[in-house]
Amino acid sequence: LSNHTVIAFDVDLQAIRAEIISMAQLVEQQIAGAAAALVNRDAEIAGSVIAMDVRVNEMLHEIETKVVETVARRQPFAVDLREIIGAFHISHDLERSGDLAKNICKRVMMLDIAIPETLIPNIQSLAMLALRCFRRVLDSYVERDEAKAADVWNSDKEIDEVQNSLFGEVLVCMMSDPRNITSCTHLLFCLKNLERMGDHATNIAESVRFMVKGDRFIGDRPKANEAHPAVMT
Amino acid sequence: LSNHTVIAFDVDLQAIRAEIISMAQLVEQQIAGAAAALVNRDAEIAGSVIAMDVRVNEMLHEIETKVVETVARRQPFAVDLREIIGAFHISHDLERSGDLAKNICKRVMMLDIAIPETLIPNIQSLAMLALRCFRRVLDSYVERDEAKAADVWNSDKEIDEVQNSLFGEVLVCMMSDPRNITSCTHLLFCLKNLERMGDHATNIAESVRFMVKGDRFIGDRPKANEAHPAVMT
Repeated sequence: LSNHTVIAFDVDLQAIRAEIISMAQLVEQQIAGAAAALVNRDAEIAGSVIAMDVRVNEMLHEIETKVVETVARRQPFAVDLREIIGAFHISHDLERSGDLAKNICKRVMMLDIAIPETLIPNIQSLAMLALRCFRRVLDSYVERDEAKAADVWNSDKEIDEVQNSLFGEVLVCMMSDPRNITSCTHLLFCLKNLERMGDHATNIAESVRFMVKGDRFIGDRPKANEAHPAVMT
Repeated sequence: LSNHTVIAFDVDLQAIRAEIISMAQLVEQQIAGAAAALVNRDAEIAGSVIAMDVRVNEMLHEIETKVVETVARRQPFAVDLREIIGAFHISHDLERSGDLAKNICKRVMMLDIAIPETLIPNIQSLAMLALRCFRRVLDSYVERDEAKAADVWNSDKEIDEVQNSLFGEVLVCMMSDPRNITSCTHLLFCLKNLERMGDHATNIAESVRFMVKGDRFIGDRPKANEAHPAVMT
């Protein structure tokens, strides 16, 4: 390959990385916003999270186009190809995380979800765990830090555990007073969405590992005991 | 481009198409199996659906590798590029549909879900709608039939409507007898997974349209009125 080709490819890659980081920052705002909207039942924040979705989807398409053009034009192999496949996967995981945040916010806006006060602290913990995972995995992408990615991959278990106990508490609320059933059902789906954000963070961790090392994490993804199998997707 | 290149590219494309069709057939079996396992609470069928997941994931990775290699080697443009991007998206939608089927089966196996008898006919309708959508959209892919794809795209609304009324019925069951709450919660997640399969069928319809016509369906995806917003993702 000529020097010229190599430099052109690097420029393409940098552009893709920069756009993924911008997209990630937007999705991070969506996740933080969804958490706040849910805990405080704040329709205004919810509305702003929903409004961001259009731009996130546009960015996904822009990244996808750049990735495909770059592969076709530069014919990258080995490590460069990994970098670019990783970018493709990460942009999709980001988009779906933003979508989950949007859907939490739609529920918050359309419904008067009366969350039993006793559940608030654990909901807040779950939301903060999801957000922390997400931030940490983005750091691992920016810094190409495979150890940080491994941390995120291992911490998914923690989210599952908080989720498990929270699901149990919500079920108890429903059983103790049937008037809670409708709003608690909505709440269950919101919690499920938070958990799925954690799954996407774990996917991104796997992509980072693959980009940096060219292989996969060893063993099954750590999972909490499924004491409350309502937690399953 | 030389004739040789064009033929080589066609061979690559045919191989990718053939593998997508095999993958789709496997996922179709998973969806049909999940529907049967849920309605009849049949742990044996559930187990066989779960076991198929490994192969489906392998196929996804094989297709992904072929797609990337083909783009890098043949540098396709315009219609060929659309074909290959479409293949990439479709294989991911297939994989996720299979995953949803697997998760329904996990719930069926781990839990003694006692589904209220009155709900069975509507659950069966929903499962059959999802399966029909899925089969139809695969036909549209095989036949490159954009009109059939449009049908599927429009019929997602029907699934949403059945889903809406079913969700209402499940909530009523929960309210009328708190002993139903746990198993009905599991049921809600199973139904949600069926609905999400319908969403993936719609995504595939969009990919087929894009492959055949190079554009997108006009307007918003038809959605039922969200009378029971529990239905939202």
